[in-house]
Amino acid sequence: MQRPSGRQPEQLRPIKITRNYTKHAEGSVLVEFGDTKVICTASVVPGVPPFLRGKDQGWLTAEYGMLPRSTGSRMGREAARGKQGGRTVEIQRLIGRSLRAAVDLNQLGENTLHIDCDVIQADGGTRTASITGAWVAIADAIAYMKKEGMTKGDPLLRAIASVSVGVYQGVPVLDLDYPEDSNADTDMNVVMANDGGIIEIQGTAEADPFTEEQFTAMFALAKLGIAELNKLQQEALTSDV
Amino acid sequence: MQRPSGRQPEQLRPIKITRNYTKHAEGSVLVEFGDTKVICTASVVPGVPPFLRGKDQGWLTAEYGMLPRSTGSRMGREAARGKQGGRTVEIQRLIGRSLRAAVDLNQLGENTLHIDCDVIQADGGTRTASITGAWVAIADAIAYMKKEGMTKGDPLLRAIASVSVGVYQGVPVLDLDYPEDSNADTDMNVVMANDGGIIEIQGTAEADPFTEEQFTAMFALAKLGIAELNKLQQEALTSDV
Amino acid sequence: MQRPSGRQPEQLRPIKITRNYTKHAEGSVLVEFGDTKVICTASVVPGVPPFLRGKDQGWLTAEYGMLPRSTGSRMGREAARGKQGGRTVEIQRLIGRSLRAAVDLNQLGENTLHIDCDVIQADGGTRTASITGAWVAIADAIAYMKKEGMTKGDPLLRAIASVSVGVYQGVPVLDLDYPEDSNADTDMNVVMANDGGIIEIQGTAEADPFTEEQFTAMFALAKLGIAELNKLQQEALTSDV
Amino acid sequence: MQRPSGRQPEQLRPIKITRNYTKHAEGSVLVEFGDTKVICTASVVPGVPPFLRGKDQGWLTAEYGMLPRSTGSRMGREAARGKQGGRTVEIQRLIGRSLRAAVDLNQLGENTLHIDCDVIQADGGTRTASITGAWVAIADAIAYMKKEGMTKGDPLLRAIASVSVGVYQGVPVLDLDYPEDSNADTDMNVVMANDGGIIEIQGTAEADPFTEEQFTAMFALAKLGIAELNKLQQEALTSDV
Amino acid sequence: MQRPSGRQPEQLRPIKITRNYTKHAEGSVLVEFGDTKVICTASVVPGVPPFLRGKDQGWLTAEYGMLPRSTGSRMGREAARGKQGGRTVEIQRLIGRSLRAAVDLNQLGENTLHIDCDVIQADGGTRTASITGAWVAIADAIAYMKKEGMTKGDPLLRAIASVSVGVYQGVPVLDLDYPEDSNADTDMNVVMANDGGIIEIQGTAEADPFTEEQFTAMFALAKLGIAELNKLQQEALTSDV
Amino acid sequence: MQRPSGRQPEQLRPIKITRNYTKHAEGSVLVEFGDTKVICTASVVPGVPPFLRGKDQGWLTAEYGMLPRSTGSRMGREAARGKQGGRTVEIQRLIGRSLRAAVDLNQLGENTLHIDCDVIQADGGTRTASITGAWVAIADAIAYMKKEGMTKGDPLLRAIASVSVGVYQGVPVLDLDYPEDSNADTDMNVVMANDGGIIEIQGTAEADPFTEEQFTAMFALAKLGIAELNKLQQEALTSDV
Repeated sequence: MQRPSGRQPEQLRPIKITRNYTKHAEGSVLVEFGDTKVICTASVVPGVPPFLRGKDQGWLTAEYGMLPRSTGSRMGREAARGKQGGRTVEIQRLIGRSLRAAVDLNQLGENTLHIDCDVIQADGGTRTASITGAWVAIADAIAYMKKEGMTKGDPLLRAIASVSVGVYQGVPVLDLDYPEDSNADTDMNVVMANDGGIIEIQGTAEADPFTEEQFTAMFALAKLGIAELNKLQQEALTSDV
Repeated sequence: MQRPSGRQPEQLRPIKITRNYTKHAEGSVLVEFGDTKVICTASVVPGVPPFLRGKDQGWLTAEYGMLPRSTGSRMGREAARGKQGGRTVEIQRLIGRSLRAAVDLNQLGENTLHIDCDVIQADGGTRTASITGAWVAIADAIAYMKKEGMTKGDPLLRAIASVSVGVYQGVPVLDLDYPEDSNADTDMNVVMANDGGIIEIQGTAEADPFTEEQFTAMFALAKLGIAELNKLQQEALTSDV
Repeated sequence: MQRPSGRQPEQLRPIKITRNYTKHAEGSVLVEFGDTKVICTASVVPGVPPFLRGKDQGWLTAEYGMLPRSTGSRMGREAARGKQGGRTVEIQRLIGRSLRAAVDLNQLGENTLHIDCDVIQADGGTRTASITGAWVAIADAIAYMKKEGMTKGDPLLRAIASVSVGVYQGVPVLDLDYPEDSNADTDMNVVMANDGGIIEIQGTAEADPFTEEQFTAMFALAKLGIAELNKLQQEALTSDV
Repeated sequence: MQRPSGRQPEQLRPIKITRNYTKHAEGSVLVEFGDTKVICTASVVPGVPPFLRGKDQGWLTAEYGMLPRSTGSRMGREAARGKQGGRTVEIQRLIGRSLRAAVDLNQLGENTLHIDCDVIQADGGTRTASITGAWVAIADAIAYMKKEGMTKGDPLLRAIASVSVGVYQGVPVLDLDYPEDSNADTDMNVVMANDGGIIEIQGTAEADPFTEEQFTAMFALAKLGIAELNKLQQEALTSDV
Repeated sequence: MQRPSGRQPEQLRPIKITRNYTKHAEGSVLVEFGDTKVICTASVVPGVPPFLRGKDQGWLTAEYGMLPRSTGSRMGREAARGKQGGRTVEIQRLIGRSLRAAVDLNQLGENTLHIDCDVIQADGGTRTASITGAWVAIADAIAYMKKEGMTKGDPLLRAIASVSVGVYQGVPVLDLDYPEDSNADTDMNVVMANDGGIIEIQGTAEADPFTEEQFTAMFALAKLGIAELNKLQQEALTSDV
Repeated sequence: MQRPSGRQPEQLRPIKITRNYTKHAEGSVLVEFGDTKVICTASVVPGVPPFLRGKDQGWLTAEYGMLPRSTGSRMGREAARGKQGGRTVEIQRLIGRSLRAAVDLNQLGENTLHIDCDVIQADGGTRTASITGAWVAIADAIAYMKKEGMTKGDPLLRAIASVSVGVYQGVPVLDLDYPEDSNADTDMNVVMANDGGIIEIQGTAEADPFTEEQFTAMFALAKLGIAELNKLQQEALTSDV
């Protein structure tokens, strides 16, 4: 088996995390997993949704979008069509749910962290890149909140990263790019914390069911990948910007 | 640990599968997982979506809904609000994706199996009940298609069932009802085939991450539950109706 | 003239009213007019719409829907299409308006009775079955409110039922089923109180106009039918459940 | 009992029918029932909706709207709110259904008569004025179609008019204006043909049920009113324009 | 060059401004630019949008619509399609922005002037007719507010009118009608005050760019036209109604 | 008068045009006017809208969007709200109309150039930057089409650029940034060709009307700015990428 990119089965694509990518957001990151490029911003917005008002806690919510020509052929613009597609909705719910596990909402005050992940170039793995990049944006936004005295203690509970794994031509591989993803037998997205805790696992058989053994092999690759991503996140956060 | 229902950790709720529940659909099933009741219909609709036209294959798609007062407090009616909520979209995508793994689309002719899962009473596990019941409706609808000479060979590839597992007060349990679901530390939905193949795994940490050991224990329970559900599906299909 | 069902012109279909059909709603009824089956729930929701706030009165509103495969061929799901069709809107306005005549809104407190009528199997007369069944659900919901001390006096003013009448092959007939309804010359829905008061009359010539004599004959049938339905409603309410 | 307008119970408001009110439509009428003013246009549009294609017949459909400030206080513009309200939907369905009874769709060729009724000033009875005025617009549009050789025989089957009747302060009255309508005990809209045939009856008890005697008295008034409206329609059609 | 209407290049169409055209609005004008006819109403609505609350100032906003058969062939009704088209949105923003320049919002109290411009017959220049007619409706509405003591000083800052100019067959012309507009090389809409101040200029090359000389010639015509329109507005306001 | 940025009145912000910014689109440009950054893609899509089918010509259309946190405070995502705002619609119509003047649609074959302008960071002048950058993307896309033999002759008629001018504290200035734009007395957007032809002028008085003299001074600045932008566009196109 030869991966289209020539990578080893357990090899991530080149990962790049650029902080302060745009100037307005409290946290703003361009994350690149190879040719997949996503702008992740974390906005600090005073107030919480109605169901949380008066409970002295904060909220985190996420939205996801793709520029119409981030993909090989142009997709219709969701704003023009008047609704978000099902795939968009599913992905942004995953992003929000995962990232809430990184934050202690009770320490945020009555503020909302509004995460936006906008794909400017897609080549597979946009949801895992989004989660990985958005976590860095959140770290920056929370640092801003702490500096401004908006939080109680430290709302950042743990580091979170995400990667995809799959079975490509019978072989478990890490971090699928688009040519792999569109031909994979099985595709699994894993979100984990830096201490090895599992936040979310979503595994899908594209056609034939997969076996428990395949699951185990894929999961082992995911752990490797996430450890590496955690390291790159920390490096990004400790670098000067 | 005492489950609110008094069940053993590895015990399913009473399961009931009623075929031919309504008279118009080619497959029509009322599935009950305890107090969770879902009407699952499989409609045979000639034609396929535009992206499949002329490819000599069929399609399967699913929609999901809840009656406004299927729940403890009344939810707004999605048709009146003018859009399906994010949770609905996420669930119906899971249902459709899972059930497509049960059907050989190349044997269906240019027909669409349109699955509708409508919850008339909710008590946790509506998506797993939907998948389990809808599979029986599909089996009936495909039997109808075969009798009518609409298929090529046998489009039914395998039996599919689904169950939830979770960690409740630190103990892995099978088939969560609402009181458990709303207090679970972790919640995982598993879809499997009757030969042990995995179709879909979706595991979510509600607050704290879960461990690989917990995953393994939950998955073992899921396998038990699905084997039992597969047996009940077969019994339903071989009973007179 | 022979009715497709073999019924006499003045004969209702078999009517069945099942209370406490689902467990969450304050009133929950499955009503069956022959093969037409509708789940009617009455939900007690604190608060009133903005235009009534502070007026010390309650409100009653109704919504109507059909499961996509309640009918002979599958209809598109209104929630997925993003709007309720014109027929749905027209019917739910009729249901709400009719049932408000059964309730003294000044005795309800600042609460809303939210009626949901969801057709799970359609065979003609879904709107008349909805009104007839929903009235029983309202009676149960109001009994609940009285027990909970939420009302002032007795908000239930009168019993309300509804039936269709039509001219089928030149003969006035009661309670049209779908084969009759789709071939009727004239179709009329009547809502009346148990004291003979008229709540709503909607008569429509499907192609040719109808005469005053035909109107009179149809109306006489409607009175018979509604008297019978009122009796069945009372029997349902006094039976143990 | 004194009617707010000083009219006799059986007296219509001053009725005015102006043909060729705007220049583009094949039929264009301004109809005035007192201060209620509606522009009714009948547009001849080649083609029919999908469900009628290839059946060698035509179609008639109607839409209704109110200018935002046609009423005492400004209503939100439906186009800006993104949906038609329930009342609008109910009224335009009544208008279309009623007017289809005036036209032999089999004589229209594969053309659609598209009726638009737009209220520029409202003072009660907008739906009855719409039907009455739109019928004249249809007569003009069909005359145009005949001249152009677009029809087979004569598609105009009969004259149709509509009027409201009600019980105001206990007395049956004809053609309610807004001050009466908003205080009426009962309100009934009647659509009839010039030969006395009934097209549509919609009677609604606003609060208390009404009796069969009241119905009979109201219906007698409606017949008088419609006969008068039919005469005015004919006068309009035979006048020079 | 011969204009289709036979007008001189610098000649307006016959202009007619009818005040008090409908009875409910505080200002109600029918404005006619030749065969273009627009009903312009100015409604005084207590309150302001959220972004202005508590700032002790008023607001002015405008909406625009066309009756479906105001045009040569029937357009779809925007309320039925569920959204306003791009052209509608662009025009109503222009109308609102222009008219706000006529009013001192600080003198209005916390009230909103809601302008509705509804085209009942279109023959080119509907947006310029709308602005010109709506200004007269505003003058009437503000007179009403002053009489009712709702304003502080005099909120009416200046008279505003609008006209189109274009290059038709190489010649600059004033006030294009539809036959000219649909064949013009260039089309420019100008909004000016009665003291010669410019409120808005929107010039568009339909195919080939236009020159600065053409701009200058068109603008000179616009000044002439607007001076004439201002005179007609004043005459309308000083006439008895 | 001191401009907030310290620029001279006739001085553009630093302009940067980066071609091939993303990899999928036939033309892909990041355009920067100071801190305003817009991704402009030109996609070649086979086929034309229905109103042009069979006419042997192409089409060009544009859509515009802003990332939710491209601005100082987060804006709601239009895809999530279910509609594009009025400002968005107005801008994308301007962009499309302007760019169509650069292209001979008769030379495009039955293909559509679909332009997407997505603002990733906003600091004033996003519409003028969009037009200027999108023109370069179009030039690249047309070069691609020519190489692929999709065009007849050369569809690129002329170079187009756009800039804003305004009156800031009484002084006409070129290329307003956000601090100027939000305080300007007058704001004008000009689109011109490289031969001095005018494509579009949109001038708006923000509060007080502006004079003809101010218009003339602003227009003179716009000509200067556009000449400079045209030069930068040509440099970008002739540089290696």
